[in-house]
Amino acid sequence: MFQTVALVGATGAVGRIMRQLLEERDFPAREFRFLASARSAGTTLTFKGKQYTVEELRKDVFAGVDLVISTTPDDTARDFLPAAVEAGATVIDESGYWRMNESVALVIPEVNPQAALDAQGIIASPNCSTTQMVMALKPLHDAARVRRVVVSTYQATSGAGVQGNADLTDGTRAHLEGQPYDYQAFSHPIAFNCIPQIGREKEEGYTSEEMKMVYETRKILGDDSILVSPTCVRIPVANCHSESIIVETEQPVSPEDARRLFEEFPGITVVDDLANGAYPLPSTCDGSDEVFIGRIRRDLSHPNGLNFWCVSDNLRKGAATNAVQIAELLAKHRSAATA
Amino acid sequence: MFQTVALVGATGAVGRIMRQLLEERDFPAREFRFLASARSAGTTLTFKGKQYTVEELRKDVFAGVDLVISTTPDDTARDFLPAAVEAGATVIDESGYWRMNESVALVIPEVNPQAALDAQGIIASPNCSTTQMVMALKPLHDAARVRRVVVSTYQATSGAGVQGNADLTDGTRAHLEGQPYDYQAFSHPIAFNCIPQIGREKEEGYTSEEMKMVYETRKILGDDSILVSPTCVRIPVANCHSESIIVETEQPVSPEDARRLFEEFPGITVVDDLANGAYPLPSTCDGSDEVFIGRIRRDLSHPNGLNFWCVSDNLRKGAATNAVQIAELLAKHRSAATA
Repeated sequence: MFQTVALVGATGAVGRIMRQLLEERDFPAREFRFLASARSAGTTLTFKGKQYTVEELRKDVFAGVDLVISTTPDDTARDFLPAAVEAGATVIDESGYWRMNESVALVIPEVNPQAALDAQGIIASPNCSTTQMVMALKPLHDAARVRRVVVSTYQATSGAGVQGNADLTDGTRAHLEGQPYDYQAFSHPIAFNCIPQIGREKEEGYTSEEMKMVYETRKILGDDSILVSPTCVRIPVANCHSESIIVETEQPVSPEDARRLFEEFPGITVVDDLANGAYPLPSTCDGSDEVFIGRIRRDLSHPNGLNFWCVSDNLRKGAATNAVQIAELLAKHRSAATA
Repeated sequence: MFQTVALVGATGAVGRIMRQLLEERDFPAREFRFLASARSAGTTLTFKGKQYTVEELRKDVFAGVDLVISTTPDDTARDFLPAAVEAGATVIDESGYWRMNESVALVIPEVNPQAALDAQGIIASPNCSTTQMVMALKPLHDAARVRRVVVSTYQATSGAGVQGNADLTDGTRAHLEGQPYDYQAFSHPIAFNCIPQIGREKEEGYTSEEMKMVYETRKILGDDSILVSPTCVRIPVANCHSESIIVETEQPVSPEDARRLFEEFPGITVVDDLANGAYPLPSTCDGSDEVFIGRIRRDLSHPNGLNFWCVSDNLRKGAATNAVQIAELLAKHRSAATA
């Protein structure tokens, strides 16, 4: 059990869900502290029936904190989290900044829990689009070794933060009324449109979001020989990312075997009955902590190929839930060690 | 030149665009007739400044017609078009019913014009999602032989007809107001959602829309060895289908060579400058007769692979434009033959 847990970025979209999860799941700690940028500091929030004042995030606030769970922009994570590590805290970071750092563990508790238990300092939680895909890949990789992945995403506006969702709602309303709308979070209209760019141009014509799916997948699965061909697309959906995934494995995996492997894997729910119109949808997966898989079928273009459709709540398993699950894993390990 | 052209399905969404195209492009014919189901028969429409009464589609109306351009549901095409052929007309059919019939030509004028010129009777225009993809595949196939295609679509509601777009608009409005809405064209809500099913279950867990992309592609390119792995998804966009396409070719094609091949191909426009946020979008391609390609890059997962993003107006090049282009091809050939 942890003594003092500090939640950094406590007032943002993901921070709010983290608070809810820590409350609902009765996370074991003596004391909680809530930190945010100067803009939100001083506001109050209620947690487990108790009032808290949000503290300003500064480098000198981590004394006595033994666990930090952090969800901030990359530059905030870069600037402040080393101070938390120096103060002796274990840090779980939801931002993208530390993920590919060699000394940082990148963890999905169902996939590579040992990396979190072996880690010193910062433990990173993967990018939302990566997490749900790697959850699906893991049982296939264990059973038949994943060699190649082709993925096209259908990503929600909540991945672009609170402003992303405001743009979707207000932009759509304006579009329906024939009014202009000035988009803040997107460089093109998102109302009744789809945008094949998430993040900036990174390398060889791929975006930063796409390259996260390449590099983070390899790191989490501990296999640099896995090839990933990603296309990341923003669509006018408020929450939950969907992914069309084609996997080639060293050994063939039949759709029946894949269905069984998925069903047996913790954190995955299979919804797969095309004849009756049953498959995961953003509208039905919203608010759940699970990764949902459907449309499981053989790849018509490769003997060892498998196609499927994967949906998950990007703010939950794609962000808040995964970070809290890492914290729970560490807490359980600590109490086992001290028992 | 044709004497009498009959447009069947003249009052539907695609029929309306066909009329507009025949008018704008000054299609060469002595006489035009406009046919529709009993429900629309008797209404009047204006074409090239002249008033026409819409005639009821019956099997005995084709006497004296030498060209039929038809856009109807599959069963209407099945029931009525053989009568037009028997009456001596050349028939261009936009429906799905006749496309895979061995005695029917399946034609994209830029891709396989000779098949239209050699045809007897019905000439079919391909499915919208197939047409734009095959336009993109053709120059790659000619240069380097396409072996395998993995495609994930982002399809507009206009593909589900006028009711599809009404569902999108009214369903979205209701969703924003927190009101229930009873969807007619879709089996799940399409407002702020995406649905990984278009058409009914066809075979091996694939939908009818997906299998069209497999079979029609092979027939148009005249190569049954091309492997296609499709995933068709409806998204909340009113018009223009987008496609994430990965192609493997026998010989490698660099992104630079692919860009040049696309640019030189008639009917394709390349919009590809990721650093400046330039790529095709449904919002920018709407109303155009072209197929737009961007995000051209090497496939990170295959030495002979190429990735790109393809957008086209599904009611135009995906339907009306392609059919009218076939008619123009035939008209040009006739006038050359009689010159």
